Amino acid sequence: MTILWGLNITTVLDLLGTFAFAISGIRMASGKNIDWFGAYVIGLVTAIGGGTTRDLLLDVTPFWMQDATYLVTTGVALLAAILFKDRLFRWGNTLFLFDTIGLGLFTIVGISKSVEAGLSYWVCIIMGTITGSVGGVLRDVFLNEVPLLFRKDIYALACVAGGIVYFVCYQFELVAPMPELIAALTVIIIRIIAVKFHLHLPVLSSIQSRQDKSKSS
Amino acid sequence: MTILWGLNITTVLDLLGTFAFAISGIRMASGKNIDWFGAYVIGLVTAIGGGTTRDLLLDVTPFWMQDATYLVTTGVALLAAILFKDRLFRWGNTLFLFDTIGLGLFTIVGISKSVEAGLSYWVCIIMGTITGSVGGVLRDVFLNEVPLLFRKDIYALACVAGGIVYFVCYQFELVAPMPELIAALTVIIIRIIAVKFHLHLPVLSSIQSRQDKSKSS
Amino acid sequence: MTILWGLNITTVLDLLGTFAFAISGIRMASGKNIDWFGAYVIGLVTAIGGGTTRDLLLDVTPFWMQDATYLVTTGVALLAAILFKDRLFRWGNTLFLFDTIGLGLFTIVGISKSVEAGLSYWVCIIMGTITGSVGGVLRDVFLNEVPLLFRKDIYALACVAGGIVYFVCYQFELVAPMPELIAALTVIIIRIIAVKFHLHLPVLSSIQSRQDKSKSS
Repeated sequence: MTILWGLNITTVLDLLGTFAFAISGIRMASGKNIDWFGAYVIGLVTAIGGGTTRDLLLDVTPFWMQDATYLVTTGVALLAAILFKDRLFRWGNTLFLFDTIGLGLFTIVGISKSVEAGLSYWVCIIMGTITGSVGGVLRDVFLNEVPLLFRKDIYALACVAGGIVYFVCYQFELVAPMPELIAALTVIIIRIIAVKFHLHLPVLSSIQSRQDKSKSS
Repeated sequence: MTILWGLNITTVLDLLGTFAFAISGIRMASGKNIDWFGAYVIGLVTAIGGGTTRDLLLDVTPFWMQDATYLVTTGVALLAAILFKDRLFRWGNTLFLFDTIGLGLFTIVGISKSVEAGLSYWVCIIMGTITGSVGGVLRDVFLNEVPLLFRKDIYALACVAGGIVYFVCYQFELVAPMPELIAALTVIIIRIIAVKFHLHLPVLSSIQSRQDKSKSS
Repeated sequence: MTILWGLNITTVLDLLGTFAFAISGIRMASGKNIDWFGAYVIGLVTAIGGGTTRDLLLDVTPFWMQDATYLVTTGVALLAAILFKDRLFRWGNTLFLFDTIGLGLFTIVGISKSVEAGLSYWVCIIMGTITGSVGGVLRDVFLNEVPLLFRKDIYALACVAGGIVYFVCYQFELVAPMPELIAALTVIIIRIIAVKFHLHLPVLSSIQSRQDKSKSS
C-alpha cells in the first residue's frame, strides 16, 4: 500500500518534471522562427535528453522507448504553450517549482539507476548530474546558444551536491526512501537558494597571450 | 530472382540517397571557410548521422561500420562537388529527387530495423523519423545554425506520416514489400507536395513575459 | 619489468595528453562569460569526448567510468588555469607538445581498442581519428563555433595517416610496440610539420546557384 502510494507520488512528480522541462524547451524555442514540430522536438529533447544520454552511457534501453508517457506529456506541454501562452508567464513561479522538483527527481532517478547497474559512487553522481542537466544543454545547442548551464546560476552543482548527500545518507545507514528524499530535497533547496539570492560561481576570465596582454595594459 | 532484383533496387536507392544526403551536407558547408576534409566529414555526418543515432538507441552496431560503401559514396560526392561545382545546381531538381527518395528509403529502413528489434509501433515510427532527419540536424549544428528541420518545410512530419501508413498497411494485412513501398511513396509524395506548394506548419510565436508584453503593446 | 616501464610511460603520456586536451578546452572557454563549473565541463568534454564517442560506437563501457584519473586530471587543469593563467601562455609550446603527444597517443589507443574488438582496419582507423579529434569538435559546438577541425590546420588527417602507417607496419610483420610507436610518431610529426609550415587543405569554395553567380559576375 505504502509502496503503491510511493509509486504514485514518484509518477506524478516525474510527469510534472517532464512537463516543466518540456515547457522550458518550448518557451526558449518560441519567437525564434521555429514551427510547432520544431518546438515539440526541442521540448522533448529538453525533457528526455539527460536520461537518454545516461541510458546510452549505461548501455541500457532508453527509458522513453518503454513508455509513451514522456512523448504524450511533451505534446500536452506544446498544446498548453500554444493555447495559453499569454498565461504561461503568470504561472512562472509554479513552473520554476515544477522544474526544480523535476531536477531533484531526475537526479535521484539517474543515481538510483546507476547504483543498480553497480557503478562506483562517483560515476553514479555524474550520471545523476547528466540526467538532470544534459537536456538543457542539448536544448541550447539546438537553439544555437552557449548552454546556460555553463554560464548561469548554480544548476548542475546542485545535482552534484544532492548526489554526495545521497551517499552520505547511505553511509549513515539510513534506509530507503530516506536518502532519496533527503538528496532530492538538497538539490531542490540549493537550487531555490541559488536563484533567490543570485548565487553563482566565479566566471573564468580570459587566458590571454602576453602579446594581447601588453596591448591591453 | 525477384528478391535479387529487389535487393539491387534497394541498394541502388540507398546509394543514391546517401549520395544526395552527402551532397546536401557538402553544399551547405561550401563557401564557409571549411576545407575539403571538413566538407567530407559534414557530408558523411549528414548521410550516416540519422542511422547511427538509431543504431545507438537500438544498441546494435552502427550500419556503416559493416560496409565501407557509405564512406566511399561520400568521397565520390565530395569529388563531384569539387570537380563539377558549377554544374551541381543545374542538377538541382535531380538532387532534390534523390534526397527525397533517400528520405523515404531511410525512413523505411529505420522502421524495418526497429520492427525486427521487436519495438512498439510508435517507437518504430520515431526511429524511422530519426533515421531520415537527424543527419540534417547534426549538419546544421556543426555549421553553427539552428537546424532547418525545426524551421522550414515539412520534413520530419513526412517521415511520421509514412510510418503511420506503414503500420496501417500491415493492419490491413498487406504483405511485404507492399507496406514498405506504399509508406516510402507516402513520405516522398508528402515531401514533394510540401515543397511545391510551400506548405509549412505554423511558427510558434514568442511566449513573452507580461512585462515585455506591456512594453511592446 | 619492461612491461611495467612501458605501462608507466603510457600512463604518464595519457595523463599529459588528457591534461593538455583539458587545458585546450578550458582556455577556449575563458573570457566567454563561462563560470568555473562550465569551464570544467568543457575541459572534460574536450579530454574525454573522443574516447567516449568511440566507446559508444564500439558498445563498450566508456573508459572514464572505470578510472577517476581523467576527472581528477581535468580538475588539476582547471586549478592550473585559475591559479597560473598569466603564465599559461609562456607554456604555450610545451602545451602544444603535450596536446600533440596526446593526439598521437589517443589515436593509437583508439585503434588498439578497435583491433581488439575485431573490427576491419578501416573502421579501426576511423575510431582512432574519432578518439583523437571528436573532443575538440564537441568543445567547439558547446562554445557555439564552427569546429576548428573543419577549418584549420591538418589535424584529423594526421590521425588518419598514423592509422594507415599502423596497419602498414603490421603488414610488414613488425611486432608490438613498434607499430604503435611508429604510428604515434607519424601523427605527432605530421601535426608538428603542418603547424610549423602552415600546411592546410584547400578550402571548399561556394557552390552557388547560377542565379547568384550571374549576379556576382
